[in-house]
Amino acid sequence: MSGFAEATAVQRADERSWHARVEQGWDIAGNANGGYLLAIAARALTEATGRPDPVTITAHYLAPGTPGPVSVTVDVLRAGRRFATGSATLSSSDRPLLAVLGTFGELPASTAPAAGPERVDAEPPELPSPEECAGREPPADEAPTFMHRVEMRLHPDDAGFGFGRPSGRPLVRGWFRFRDGEPLDTIGLLQAVDAFPPTIFNARLPVGWTPTVELTAHVRARPEPGWLRCAFSTRFVTGGFLEEDGEVWDATGRLVAQSRQLALVPRG
Amino acid sequence: MSGFAEATAVQRADERSWHARVEQGWDIAGNANGGYLLAIAARALTEATGRPDPVTITAHYLAPGTPGPVSVTVDVLRAGRRFATGSATLSSSDRPLLAVLGTFGELPASTAPAAGPERVDAEPPELPSPEECAGREPPADEAPTFMHRVEMRLHPDDAGFGFGRPSGRPLVRGWFRFRDGEPLDTIGLLQAVDAFPPTIFNARLPVGWTPTVELTAHVRARPEPGWLRCAFSTRFVTGGFLEEDGEVWDATGRLVAQSRQLALVPRG
Repeated sequence: MSGFAEATAVQRADERSWHARVEQGWDIAGNANGGYLLAIAARALTEATGRPDPVTITAHYLAPGTPGPVSVTVDVLRAGRRFATGSATLSSSDRPLLAVLGTFGELPASTAPAAGPERVDAEPPELPSPEECAGREPPADEAPTFMHRVEMRLHPDDAGFGFGRPSGRPLVRGWFRFRDGEPLDTIGLLQAVDAFPPTIFNARLPVGWTPTVELTAHVRARPEPGWLRCAFSTRFVTGGFLEEDGEVWDATGRLVAQSRQLALVPRG
Repeated sequence: MSGFAEATAVQRADERSWHARVEQGWDIAGNANGGYLLAIAARALTEATGRPDPVTITAHYLAPGTPGPVSVTVDVLRAGRRFATGSATLSSSDRPLLAVLGTFGELPASTAPAAGPERVDAEPPELPSPEECAGREPPADEAPTFMHRVEMRLHPDDAGFGFGRPSGRPLVRGWFRFRDGEPLDTIGLLQAVDAFPPTIFNARLPVGWTPTVELTAHVRARPEPGWLRCAFSTRFVTGGFLEEDGEVWDATGRLVAQSRQLALVPRG
């Protein structure tokens, strides 16, 4: 079973396009996970820009992805001293699945000394230890699915929706890592921000699914190895949309990424 | 003096490009305001997609804009039943200033009855009346500047930075409208989310400017006429970046837009 780096690898085809494969088992009910698809596009952008880290990246989801070959076409729009900006389209048989715009650079480790003014008015989410959180072992005898790839341990207060007991608060907190132990790079953070169950599952609203329209992630630093602490919350379910705001903190207690996605709320 | 609609107007040049002008007086110290430039690109995207309202739109800022002719090149990536997604590049003499990715549709008025589940866990910011807030009349005898175009009235608690008394909290709340009384459409909201002074001015940190790397706005509804209530806040100044989160509520007390920008924190 291939790890995340291998499952998101890209091979250059020509000056501005890359080949890749949507691998089996990175899907939820047949549709490739959105963070996984974004990671493939981001890999092509790192190669095109020559910068290893997405600083801010946005994806608009155009169509669902399924396992098989895909291509990523990239335009580098500006290459400056510190940052480079590029757009990318990830397509399957010329059908665009994902439109991406990102600015890339080289980010410090989360433990690097501050190079300028710092101020953080927030704390990592308080979580019981991973052992005390709600996890789920995927069946060993089945074909791999997304739950075989990523490991999430939910705060017990936020995990009741799975048993018909939503908390009443559109909040999902938990631990994240790759199940095979592969360390997360900054592209892995793009997976982490789109892996947890939707916050809306805890809201006691008649909403069964919330397709993502757009996802933006800001990456602040390269995470140190170990479990990530994550929190996702929603404040506005209105006008047929909801936002889901994410924070990802690494094992050293530093914020490494923020995310916000806009999702559709299908009419009840 | 031209109003916002006129100052952001675009004229089709060919199938995928539009001409426009960065007008005099939408600048701050010589550089065109970022929300104003985004509005020009968004106008071209409304024409290319045939949809009037940005649902979610992201801009990456590549170079500063100055008054003069610009062009907007658009690619429509997908046109669905409800939404259409396109990318745009706004350029001056072939130098790209702004890269944009947006999904457009037709949004309801903020007063339209809910068509599905709704839940709002937030309130509009509490503000004294516009008359009791801190405003500034632009000098009548000078060439127009951004402050002649937009009218902002800041919460007195958040306005002290202008007099050397930052509040200590990276928070800016206030009222917004166009000074000439032009009603705001959903493109006008893109101006509203990038008009207020930076939150960091209230943080008592040695930061004098924070160039925007990327701005994303979600629009939830068409605003009703009248003053908008706005609030901008920052929680993470770290790794050389800060985020600025914005909320815009219309005169009827409905959330009409959310925004988040990533800005550079120049090293102290």
